[in-house]
Amino acid sequence: MSLPRIAVDAMGGDHGVRVMVSGAALARRQHDKFKFLLVGDEERIKKALEDHPGMREASEILHCDDVVSGDEKPSRALRRAKTTSMGLAIQAVKDGSCGAAVSAGNTGALMAMSKLALRTMPGIDRPALAALLPTLEEHDVIMLDLGANTDCDARNLVQFAIMGAAYSRIVNKGRTPRVRLLNIGTESIKGTDDLQRAAQLLRDAESLDMQFDGYVEADKINRGEVDVVVTDGFSGNIALKAIEGSARFVTDLLKAAFTSSLRSKVGFLVSRPATELLKHHLDPNNHNGGVFLGLNGVIVKSHGSANAQGVANAVAVTARLLEDDLTDRISADLIKMGEEALAANGSGMDETVLGK
Amino acid sequence: MSLPRIAVDAMGGDHGVRVMVSGAALARRQHDKFKFLLVGDEERIKKALEDHPGMREASEILHCDDVVSGDEKPSRALRRAKTTSMGLAIQAVKDGSCGAAVSAGNTGALMAMSKLALRTMPGIDRPALAALLPTLEEHDVIMLDLGANTDCDARNLVQFAIMGAAYSRIVNKGRTPRVRLLNIGTESIKGTDDLQRAAQLLRDAESLDMQFDGYVEADKINRGEVDVVVTDGFSGNIALKAIEGSARFVTDLLKAAFTSSLRSKVGFLVSRPATELLKHHLDPNNHNGGVFLGLNGVIVKSHGSANAQGVANAVAVTARLLEDDLTDRISADLIKMGEEALAANGSGMDETVLGK
Repeated sequence: MSLPRIAVDAMGGDHGVRVMVSGAALARRQHDKFKFLLVGDEERIKKALEDHPGMREASEILHCDDVVSGDEKPSRALRRAKTTSMGLAIQAVKDGSCGAAVSAGNTGALMAMSKLALRTMPGIDRPALAALLPTLEEHDVIMLDLGANTDCDARNLVQFAIMGAAYSRIVNKGRTPRVRLLNIGTESIKGTDDLQRAAQLLRDAESLDMQFDGYVEADKINRGEVDVVVTDGFSGNIALKAIEGSARFVTDLLKAAFTSSLRSKVGFLVSRPATELLKHHLDPNNHNGGVFLGLNGVIVKSHGSANAQGVANAVAVTARLLEDDLTDRISADLIKMGEEALAANGSGMDETVLGK
Repeated sequence: MSLPRIAVDAMGGDHGVRVMVSGAALARRQHDKFKFLLVGDEERIKKALEDHPGMREASEILHCDDVVSGDEKPSRALRRAKTTSMGLAIQAVKDGSCGAAVSAGNTGALMAMSKLALRTMPGIDRPALAALLPTLEEHDVIMLDLGANTDCDARNLVQFAIMGAAYSRIVNKGRTPRVRLLNIGTESIKGTDDLQRAAQLLRDAESLDMQFDGYVEADKINRGEVDVVVTDGFSGNIALKAIEGSARFVTDLLKAAFTSSLRSKVGFLVSRPATELLKHHLDPNNHNGGVFLGLNGVIVKSHGSANAQGVANAVAVTARLLEDDLTDRISADLIKMGEEALAANGSGMDETVLGK
């Protein structure tokens, strides 16, 4: 495939144009075939590009004055889809001039605008927000949905599993993903009816390129034993924030403990390399990039507070999803599942799982 | 009130009779007016009591051979309510010979047996499991429900708030509890219809002895800014396990970091007092004791893997709930809320919130 451009909402995020442009430039070092469309205040973008001559050559600037603010209601932002940097970046994906868009702006607005402009892909009822989380092993774990859909039925969950698995195969270089549904126990009788039905459908779907292992409990998400954790947007958001909050809680306690006496202060200095390693592992900038899966186009959400390295990771993920044709991979699995259902003749799975 | 006895299921938990008896004996040092009914294998209980003469004098033994196992289905355990140590401990609360029961056994079985034997108190539709979690401040935070009810409506959530607030006033010595509903955002439009309706009902209920502060997100549970976190059993279980798993994740990383080089090993030894402080704070044995709220009687679940100190904390919580009449406090709030609804005349709250 030809490598299309990536649209960057240069105005979103807490740290502004400079961090977005530097981040994209950093990512470009690994993905030097990519071109960019930088959307936002032309003057400030030009200034930020001064430090990155290679990036400047690979970039076109699309000027606009209007910006979606961080606390703006999605419904209000939607009305300015044609004037804001976020809206215009998405628009570039819709009209085909870019293959993907990256923004560090308002998540709700990004989701709402992307949904309206790009629509869900055939066979998917609802898009989902997926993120990479650190584990005890080398590889990250993908969790979805993280807040786009508060109520999900079995069919939504199966579609999330298919989308998450496709994403995982790309970031884990083809390895068959181990997929589980987030639940409050691992026995088959646990959880809601929708969870149990989704588990049954995934167990029956043998042709899918994933290894479905039933349920996972929230304390096992980051043990490295699972590649894709599938859940509804409400529970996913709760789990994600509980994990982030608890990690911060422990590191805050640690900080307090290390400053509680002279002896512990000395200990801290001596063990600095060890605690730096921990800090590096937990730093969200090293796992940055939420992806909206299931749309006709790739939309990546960078953390609002991400630094240039964080933005670079988000842009690098975007580039890999484009190189490896995420959307095509999801389509292929949906078709496989549909064919399997037809072969099973009247199992009703085509209606149960695939969008009508 | 007279101080009644506490029934102890001496057979539940991973560490057996000795830990349960030692734990109860430890708790008795602070609560020396309490008597105990120790239920289980008489010979082993007698042996365990040899080390605790004070405890032996305060205890009666109820012998039985049968034990509910850790992985047993609640439905199966229910049939042996009259022969198992867990069932007989609950039975002692039902017939009034004890005011409360403590068990470290199978949570599902304990919940099912307690519900069937004790029934929910007037005005409560469903009991809830509440636990104490550590925060950055001195006091713990109470979270409920943690798995007893996977589907909850607005009325259940309001009742959980009332029960959690009563529990909080007891453990926090009368301080007005700050109560919040767990949600995926703090704006009033966030979350399910039931959450929004529960928030409205709690905002309107001015006579309740709590300060209702709207929503809390899962990353703020342990910041010390809230005393009672109210949620349905599914989300509560996800949040609790995500918090536990994430804390273990960070401490595992820390352990790995501290053993990664000679320098960091030295650093670890020097900073030992600091890391011991952290360990103490995170040790679940220091926050042990899940309470089933809303039953006609107090049932406390000690962690299956708790050591003697953990069991002692669970028994101490039980003693305080009895001393301070938890059940009466919940009743009083339910009546207040009912009166307020009657005064508001036709607001429908009596039907919406109170059990019919």
